[in-house]
Amino acid sequence: MSLAAKEAIKETADTCHAKEWLRRYQRVRAATETICAPLYKEDYMVQSMPDVSPPKWHIAHVSWFFEAFVLKPFYPAYQTLDPAYDHLFNSYYVTHGTPFPRPDRGMISRPTVDDVYRYRAHIDQAMEALLNDPPQAHLEEILRRLELGLPHEQQHQELLFMDIKHILAQNPLCPVYRDDVAPPPVHEVGALGWHAYSAGVRSIGHDEAEKGFAYDNEMGRHRQFVEAFQIADRPVTNGEFLEFIRAGGYDKPDYWLSDGWATVQAEGWRAPLYWVERDGVWHHFTLSGLVPVDLSAPVCHVSFFEAEAYAQWVGARLPTEAEWETVARDVPMQGNFVEQDHLQPVAAAVPKDLPGQMFGDVWEWTGSAYRPYPGFRTLPGSLGEYNGKFMSGQMVLRGGCCATPGDHIRATYRNFFPPHARWAFSGFRLAKEG
Amino acid sequence: MSLAAKEAIKETADTCHAKEWLRRYQRVRAATETICAPLYKEDYMVQSMPDVSPPKWHIAHVSWFFEAFVLKPFYPAYQTLDPAYDHLFNSYYVTHGTPFPRPDRGMISRPTVDDVYRYRAHIDQAMEALLNDPPQAHLEEILRRLELGLPHEQQHQELLFMDIKHILAQNPLCPVYRDDVAPPPVHEVGALGWHAYSAGVRSIGHDEAEKGFAYDNEMGRHRQFVEAFQIADRPVTNGEFLEFIRAGGYDKPDYWLSDGWATVQAEGWRAPLYWVERDGVWHHFTLSGLVPVDLSAPVCHVSFFEAEAYAQWVGARLPTEAEWETVARDVPMQGNFVEQDHLQPVAAAVPKDLPGQMFGDVWEWTGSAYRPYPGFRTLPGSLGEYNGKFMSGQMVLRGGCCATPGDHIRATYRNFFPPHARWAFSGFRLAKEG
Amino acid sequence: MSLAAKEAIKETADTCHAKEWLRRYQRVRAATETICAPLYKEDYMVQSMPDVSPPKWHIAHVSWFFEAFVLKPFYPAYQTLDPAYDHLFNSYYVTHGTPFPRPDRGMISRPTVDDVYRYRAHIDQAMEALLNDPPQAHLEEILRRLELGLPHEQQHQELLFMDIKHILAQNPLCPVYRDDVAPPPVHEVGALGWHAYSAGVRSIGHDEAEKGFAYDNEMGRHRQFVEAFQIADRPVTNGEFLEFIRAGGYDKPDYWLSDGWATVQAEGWRAPLYWVERDGVWHHFTLSGLVPVDLSAPVCHVSFFEAEAYAQWVGARLPTEAEWETVARDVPMQGNFVEQDHLQPVAAAVPKDLPGQMFGDVWEWTGSAYRPYPGFRTLPGSLGEYNGKFMSGQMVLRGGCCATPGDHIRATYRNFFPPHARWAFSGFRLAKEG
Amino acid sequence: MSLAAKEAIKETADTCHAKEWLRRYQRVRAATETICAPLYKEDYMVQSMPDVSPPKWHIAHVSWFFEAFVLKPFYPAYQTLDPAYDHLFNSYYVTHGTPFPRPDRGMISRPTVDDVYRYRAHIDQAMEALLNDPPQAHLEEILRRLELGLPHEQQHQELLFMDIKHILAQNPLCPVYRDDVAPPPVHEVGALGWHAYSAGVRSIGHDEAEKGFAYDNEMGRHRQFVEAFQIADRPVTNGEFLEFIRAGGYDKPDYWLSDGWATVQAEGWRAPLYWVERDGVWHHFTLSGLVPVDLSAPVCHVSFFEAEAYAQWVGARLPTEAEWETVARDVPMQGNFVEQDHLQPVAAAVPKDLPGQMFGDVWEWTGSAYRPYPGFRTLPGSLGEYNGKFMSGQMVLRGGCCATPGDHIRATYRNFFPPHARWAFSGFRLAKEG
Repeated sequence: MSLAAKEAIKETADTCHAKEWLRRYQRVRAATETICAPLYKEDYMVQSMPDVSPPKWHIAHVSWFFEAFVLKPFYPAYQTLDPAYDHLFNSYYVTHGTPFPRPDRGMISRPTVDDVYRYRAHIDQAMEALLNDPPQAHLEEILRRLELGLPHEQQHQELLFMDIKHILAQNPLCPVYRDDVAPPPVHEVGALGWHAYSAGVRSIGHDEAEKGFAYDNEMGRHRQFVEAFQIADRPVTNGEFLEFIRAGGYDKPDYWLSDGWATVQAEGWRAPLYWVERDGVWHHFTLSGLVPVDLSAPVCHVSFFEAEAYAQWVGARLPTEAEWETVARDVPMQGNFVEQDHLQPVAAAVPKDLPGQMFGDVWEWTGSAYRPYPGFRTLPGSLGEYNGKFMSGQMVLRGGCCATPGDHIRATYRNFFPPHARWAFSGFRLAKEG
Repeated sequence: MSLAAKEAIKETADTCHAKEWLRRYQRVRAATETICAPLYKEDYMVQSMPDVSPPKWHIAHVSWFFEAFVLKPFYPAYQTLDPAYDHLFNSYYVTHGTPFPRPDRGMISRPTVDDVYRYRAHIDQAMEALLNDPPQAHLEEILRRLELGLPHEQQHQELLFMDIKHILAQNPLCPVYRDDVAPPPVHEVGALGWHAYSAGVRSIGHDEAEKGFAYDNEMGRHRQFVEAFQIADRPVTNGEFLEFIRAGGYDKPDYWLSDGWATVQAEGWRAPLYWVERDGVWHHFTLSGLVPVDLSAPVCHVSFFEAEAYAQWVGARLPTEAEWETVARDVPMQGNFVEQDHLQPVAAAVPKDLPGQMFGDVWEWTGSAYRPYPGFRTLPGSLGEYNGKFMSGQMVLRGGCCATPGDHIRATYRNFFPPHARWAFSGFRLAKEG
Repeated sequence: MSLAAKEAIKETADTCHAKEWLRRYQRVRAATETICAPLYKEDYMVQSMPDVSPPKWHIAHVSWFFEAFVLKPFYPAYQTLDPAYDHLFNSYYVTHGTPFPRPDRGMISRPTVDDVYRYRAHIDQAMEALLNDPPQAHLEEILRRLELGLPHEQQHQELLFMDIKHILAQNPLCPVYRDDVAPPPVHEVGALGWHAYSAGVRSIGHDEAEKGFAYDNEMGRHRQFVEAFQIADRPVTNGEFLEFIRAGGYDKPDYWLSDGWATVQAEGWRAPLYWVERDGVWHHFTLSGLVPVDLSAPVCHVSFFEAEAYAQWVGARLPTEAEWETVARDVPMQGNFVEQDHLQPVAAAVPKDLPGQMFGDVWEWTGSAYRPYPGFRTLPGSLGEYNGKFMSGQMVLRGGCCATPGDHIRATYRNFFPPHARWAFSGFRLAKEG
Repeated sequence: MSLAAKEAIKETADTCHAKEWLRRYQRVRAATETICAPLYKEDYMVQSMPDVSPPKWHIAHVSWFFEAFVLKPFYPAYQTLDPAYDHLFNSYYVTHGTPFPRPDRGMISRPTVDDVYRYRAHIDQAMEALLNDPPQAHLEEILRRLELGLPHEQQHQELLFMDIKHILAQNPLCPVYRDDVAPPPVHEVGALGWHAYSAGVRSIGHDEAEKGFAYDNEMGRHRQFVEAFQIADRPVTNGEFLEFIRAGGYDKPDYWLSDGWATVQAEGWRAPLYWVERDGVWHHFTLSGLVPVDLSAPVCHVSFFEAEAYAQWVGARLPTEAEWETVARDVPMQGNFVEQDHLQPVAAAVPKDLPGQMFGDVWEWTGSAYRPYPGFRTLPGSLGEYNGKFMSGQMVLRGGCCATPGDHIRATYRNFFPPHARWAFSGFRLAKEG
């Protein structure tokens, strides 16, 4: 076959490949818009705390990501809609430009929601044009960035659920985001069981030879020695956590990390975030409004501090991330994800042979601080800021939650939040020495 | 004439009177909506600092005022639209109920803008029904409250202009509120002139025998001895204030009150609020966007601290409110009010015989702290909280501004703000010993 | 008589005059040291809040005053002990140099207490030398500054009592400053009586023609019209204030200024400063330790906010400073001053003909904000910063207290504190319309 | 041998043992007093930031430790000097009682320095009596607590140096703590060299079978897999760090962790703590006053954030604590400790075969967050609060410093500080992949 013929074939293959990516792109982008469909324009505007971003900003920022990292560098014909957006919708890429101050994102009424959707459509059209006729020279890099940009948008989908929940929770009217979510299954869980793992050298982290995408912070597959341990067969439930509350868990410093106890007192914590007692019954605010707490469902919206205090109280501890990953490698990647459409953690039957609910329901706090793996290397350029610069002051969470897209999670995935954060769908599972 | 006939006549007269009030009510209410007409729903949502309220909240609160103080007490048939609104839209009437926390007004996306306008229409219909067929027993009190409720709404009209300006000013895109305001007249003002007043006992405050409404804080007409003084024939201009800036006014503590200098340093003040230098030319943000500063127009958006520092620098002082009122009693109540539709202070020809621009353009900081007049009495009930409880930590301003309705102002009117506040349309005029 | 003879006589007279001033200087200086005699070196070091200065700093600063404003300008032979002290012990004279940051005064362990007393002795020797052989050309100015420097030191004597009390009160051991103060007299006060004053033009402020010293802020004797009023025949007592507490005064916002109520909530105020309940009996911390509250003594260590709230609650108000001065002009200047050595306000018999306890016991909050009198002029040079620059955000108090030297006070004396301040010996007296 | 004889021998042996411990106790106690000898009473009082304690408090607290954990439980005849001290000098043992608030330690002037030394002597006498005639039943536990109490006091000896330095550094007079420290040796260090270590399973942590004391946080000797790595042959020097400064290291966010860059901006960091530029030459404040920076000495008083930023800038990283311990196991425990009496890190010749300056000079930031080892168990009772409750938000440092007693350090010793802390003698060493 002639070289030209070979190249023609290669180009055709590349174009097919690019078109497949375009379909993926369209699926992910559509999912974001579905999440926002129940919102009023007013909901799009609120920044209920500095950590929360107005949904309008999310909508714009995830589009900006493709503009900044794909269209501007690789699509010469691309014309920006408004040059000021590059400043407004840059989240934290300081090597790219000066980002608009995060705590002020809720101060900006223009561009309006309609403007932002126009911006979004503008990006989508350009991405479509680019991927329908991709420049061969850059195709590989374009797809690499798409491979990052789509999980990036999925992360913001989960953030949208977290932020919308937090925004609506400020309102004494307890507004309902959606009243048609899938009803939670009813299960009565029994006593906690344990699974034992022996000591040994374990391979931790994503193997670049493995199929599928992973973030830079999962890379550097390496060896860790994991001493023998046991892990609980399910996450701690609301019912169990309620016993801790009733035993005065929030009243006495005995079980708390020093910083944790200081936070309890400064913030006046008496229960997980979103919990309120009404006529002696604990309710919690959900995306479907205020409902009674299901005692068999995993406890959610607790901080690392609360997880540690509970573990101390029962004489156990949190698993390290290496322990968690060791267990998770053998567990099928199923669970209560966003596709199940519960939008809250739910009770589940506990399997016999393997720990249950490792994936989905709640992100599980581990006992590991978020630090780089051996040989960690940031991505080149501004994308190097994606994960690495946050490796201080945060704890690792594993396994995804009820607001995570099912195809976004994997056993090596490292999520992270500061130890006091509670607005993520975060719960925990116990471990103990083997 | 029979008693019944007399009563019938009285009733007819009362009803006529009530209808006249209804027309006034409708005029004032319509003016509020005109102010908000150029806003997007997103603009309605922003609370750019704790002192600022989202326009949506203003729209609701001024309606709530009539609901809480007129409809609920005097219109038995009245049905509230949503009982939760009483909490959400109560500003600061703690004897009425627990107001929703002021700094969180921007956190509440529902009721939406449309909901709030529905609430507004609901109140308007009820007020119309009430005033078309008023209960004779309560008519006097109803009208007394209307007489307070309409100026109350006019105050919020001015606050709307202040708050909208502050909200849009947060946005690096410098959005334009209206591009069709009346163009400012061009005048070149000359050197400052002075008018002298002799010493004597003056009557200060609103005379209850006088025609027309006044707030409780203007009441208690009383005598004050005013020593001989002189007052400037116009407010200090942008051009004059610019000389102060250029002379290093913001760099040296020499002319400042101690609290003022601390504020300059803490806030990094270098010029009045909304001023920015672009290529060596001072511009300021206005409701029509960013425009060059007119050197002949009164300086605006300065704090009491800046006014005092400027006065010290030129060897003058601010007038007391008694001095200001002594002068203003003889000045015709004309000026650059909201009806002139400039929505900013403008240059004006200086009259020969009397000080110019006493009314309109800019609220003028006086040297007087806001304290009660002799014999001050608050209104009965929750309305007693209207003015009296703010008589600490604030300075009096006089004369109204370019955002004040012309029929809202009078010579005895006492406005007040903390000495550091700058987001009102506030300027100043000099005085000196006689 | 020859001119030379006349000059010789004049010089001799001047020198006698200077020596008399030297004796006064020595008396005032000695009084400061007497106040500090019971202190340990450790007590000298504490800055219990930014408003409080370590006693060591007071000792040094009042000496610095004479160095900076008398010795350096008028005594060419003067040699400073350490040039760095000029920065360390400058309080707030920004036109003199950059003062050491006020909140950090407690951070400076060196110079030590011994060093600071050496500095003090050094200044005293130089002042003695200067006043024993004063330069005729500057004598007048030297004595003018001495006339200011001695009351300045007396003000710091009172501040020392306030600050020492606040410092020791931080200590859970309730240390006793002195256990040998004069025991308080026992009086049971009866119901409050009133004295009426008619309306009229009053002369307010210190007359420069009058004998005796006054601060610049009392100057500009001028006319004020004072409407008819009544004033209470004694200050409000602890017993009366306790009724306010028991009636829920600190629990309901109804009687409070808006800023006052915010302060009550932010600070958790439940009673005057230094009050603690022990086994159902109210005690308060005094310079003699913790003792039960004398119900007949004037209430003390209350803020302006508390004074206003109490007055609102009983349907009265605070007097203006013009009213207070009108009354005080006719009252003999006697009372419970520092010389009585109670070091706390005490119960007293109420005279028939004139209001009692106008002077001494407690500084009385007036309803007047601290602003300049007509024609107010600051002193020339850096001493112009003495009073004028604090004329914002403060309220006037009158009459001196149990920690004030008796010869320091007068009817025109204007003391001032922010409305939330409580660590001064501050109480109040009621007034009402005439 | 009869049982009685055996017991007598045992008792004699125990008593000998106890006496040996008494001598150790006396040595450690004396060392604390030597550190404080150059202080004035005023120096003893200052708390220059919440992390710093007044030296007076240290003196008392280390005595309190023996009172609370040895004398009160095991010496029935013991009589406390003042029962209030138990509250005042409890640092953070919340299960023991409510500690006096840490940030207010500088507010307490009584007990005085003399009182506190009396308290100290009182404890010493009781400890002497106890150890001279120890109760056999509790001897083992008494010695166990002594074995903890002496290192505890040694930690406070180092804290005393850190705190005294910070206290004196607040003073613009730059006071000298001691002018007779051992002069630093002069060495010119060359380019950085590296030592390589191969991958393998390593034993980490203190072996309970090993001789000698270790804290609970070093316990749980366990296995870690350490991948191949290289470590620098000496810490980073002042000269090298100066290049980072000159290259704009503090001006650009590129090399910083996100939290680190936020701290740089909030605190205005431009150089390590205590550095000041004088006429173009960098000086730093030391316990001997302000001296020029020795470019060959290890950089000191840098935060973890600065260490990480520097490492990023040169393309290296910090070692993990497992790497550091792997290296340190083979390095002789010598270095610039407190006994060398430099009281600052100094330049040193670099050995060929092993990394130099692993012990002493500067605590070395590792890249490891401070978390428990597998099987970590806190001590029983209140002493369980000693280390475990601080295992959040802190990074591990290794190796001791110029203010550490030489017999206090070991290869497994885990020190910890928050990533922004700079007042410890903290520097760092580079590592990279093997």
